Amino acid sequence: MRDLTEANLTEAVLQKLSNTKDPRLKEVMSSLIQCLHTFIREVEPTQDEWFDAIQFLTEVGQKCTDKRQEFILMSDTLGASMLIDAINNRKVEGTTESSVLGPYYRESAPELASGQSISMTKEGETIQVSGHVSDQKHVPIKGAILDVWQTAPNGLYDVQDTKQPDMNLRGKFRTDTKGRYLFHTVKPASYPIPTDGPVGKMLSGLSWHPNRPAHIHFIVSAKGFKPVTTQLFIDGDPYLESDAVFAVKDSLVAKIVSREGASSKDTASNNVSPVHNDIHYDFRLEAAQ
Amino acid sequence: MRDLTEANLTEAVLQKLSNTKDPRLKEVMSSLIQCLHTFIREVEPTQDEWFDAIQFLTEVGQKCTDKRQEFILMSDTLGASMLIDAINNRKVEGTTESSVLGPYYRESAPELASGQSISMTKEGETIQVSGHVSDQKHVPIKGAILDVWQTAPNGLYDVQDTKQPDMNLRGKFRTDTKGRYLFHTVKPASYPIPTDGPVGKMLSGLSWHPNRPAHIHFIVSAKGFKPVTTQLFIDGDPYLESDAVFAVKDSLVAKIVSREGASSKDTASNNVSPVHNDIHYDFRLEAAQ
Repeated sequence: MRDLTEANLTEAVLQKLSNTKDPRLKEVMSSLIQCLHTFIREVEPTQDEWFDAIQFLTEVGQKCTDKRQEFILMSDTLGASMLIDAINNRKVEGTTESSVLGPYYRESAPELASGQSISMTKEGETIQVSGHVSDQKHVPIKGAILDVWQTAPNGLYDVQDTKQPDMNLRGKFRTDTKGRYLFHTVKPASYPIPTDGPVGKMLSGLSWHPNRPAHIHFIVSAKGFKPVTTQLFIDGDPYLESDAVFAVKDSLVAKIVSREGASSKDTASNNVSPVHNDIHYDFRLEAAQ
Repeated sequence: MRDLTEANLTEAVLQKLSNTKDPRLKEVMSSLIQCLHTFIREVEPTQDEWFDAIQFLTEVGQKCTDKRQEFILMSDTLGASMLIDAINNRKVEGTTESSVLGPYYRESAPELASGQSISMTKEGETIQVSGHVSDQKHVPIKGAILDVWQTAPNGLYDVQDTKQPDMNLRGKFRTDTKGRYLFHTVKPASYPIPTDGPVGKMLSGLSWHPNRPAHIHFIVSAKGFKPVTTQLFIDGDPYLESDAVFAVKDSLVAKIVSREGASSKDTASNNVSPVHNDIHYDFRLEAAQ
């Protein structure tokens, strides 16, 4: 393994994997090395271009904090996250389609009573979100958990916005005996992914806009079923056709239906203003094997 | 561009490049997206594996400082740096072969008089390095600059070792009217690349050793010629056959020839101890076009 040339270098690097014990690591690294070398051979980067790429990746890493994951943004905007999502969620017909988790999920959202609002402020247009969680055959699932999070009407998640209370617009809800869930929130806004870092510069160089259509994130889980990580998109949003992270699926687009007045239940707790807007969406889970 | 699936997602991401103005960026990103998606389709990473990869890249970025470039280590150990070096230095027969720059180059090394030592301490076995810089037809090049750097006998560069004086074992030398150069140094040591970061963990997982054979780095440049970035390796080193960064070329392996006594010139300046070891190496540069 010496005197390597353009012709035999890739093979020499791959041959070193014969020392590697973990079979999965071996498989992953073999593909990585081949794809990396193919990229280099196709593009023939100059030394300066390669150093620019090294600098770019370094900046991506250094932009990450416990509240910001710039490599996830990069993965999302290059379609990698949605491809992995698709591969890991080859769906049984009739179950809810998945979408990306995104970088703003927090595990520790509070569990709230059915009907409560996840909005801790009065800002924004209130909407009621309700529906059923059932299995593929429409049999309701009792005690399913819906872990919900979204942006405020300013397009920012709590972790991005010091003016929002901690855990604003996050909550966990449980379905009742009939598989029903119900919660209140405010209308989410379409928003640009953060553009003040290297991924923002990349998008700008590519002339790709950074916007995501308005959406509400969900992880829906229940004992005996495969959990689904997904997003509900708001019908009519101008970015449905050009989501910066490729996440929109037709089956995940939900209509806001306006209605007059409000039930007493809607306004009972948590400073919820009278409800005039409804989203109804049913989730269907695939049985775990 | 909505309702994308495993089948049509890659094509949809690529289609967005029709918006991109810079033709080189378009070419690079097109290849990058295809190679990235090919890697994902081949490996089918789980969500957890992908998150581990994101975490790994984040750690690589966060390990970088102004004195440590972990992404260059990654590029070096996966053979990417030497492949780019090979592509960018398709050589005219008879000129000096190139090798990687490595992460420890510093632009501002002091210019020293011919014969001086780059070692600011008395540690290590002194060697004299001399030879000619000429063109392809062996015509000497006057005023060529040799920018030289290497580790101390402990295997560390000045920037890695607070006990070494700043700019220890770095210097620039100029050829005389006959194209001759001469300097003193101490015998370089083979050394492990830094293993206390994520790339070290990667090598350990792969069961790849981190060692590089002993070498002296050079950038040799002259007006009217293409500069060459290269390394001289010391014959007999145990890691010549398994350099962790794939950089060894037969034509760059130099013998240390021992001789008795020392000329008065060798000991004249800079606390140089009597010389008993010689490296003779001639560099040949390709004319710039």
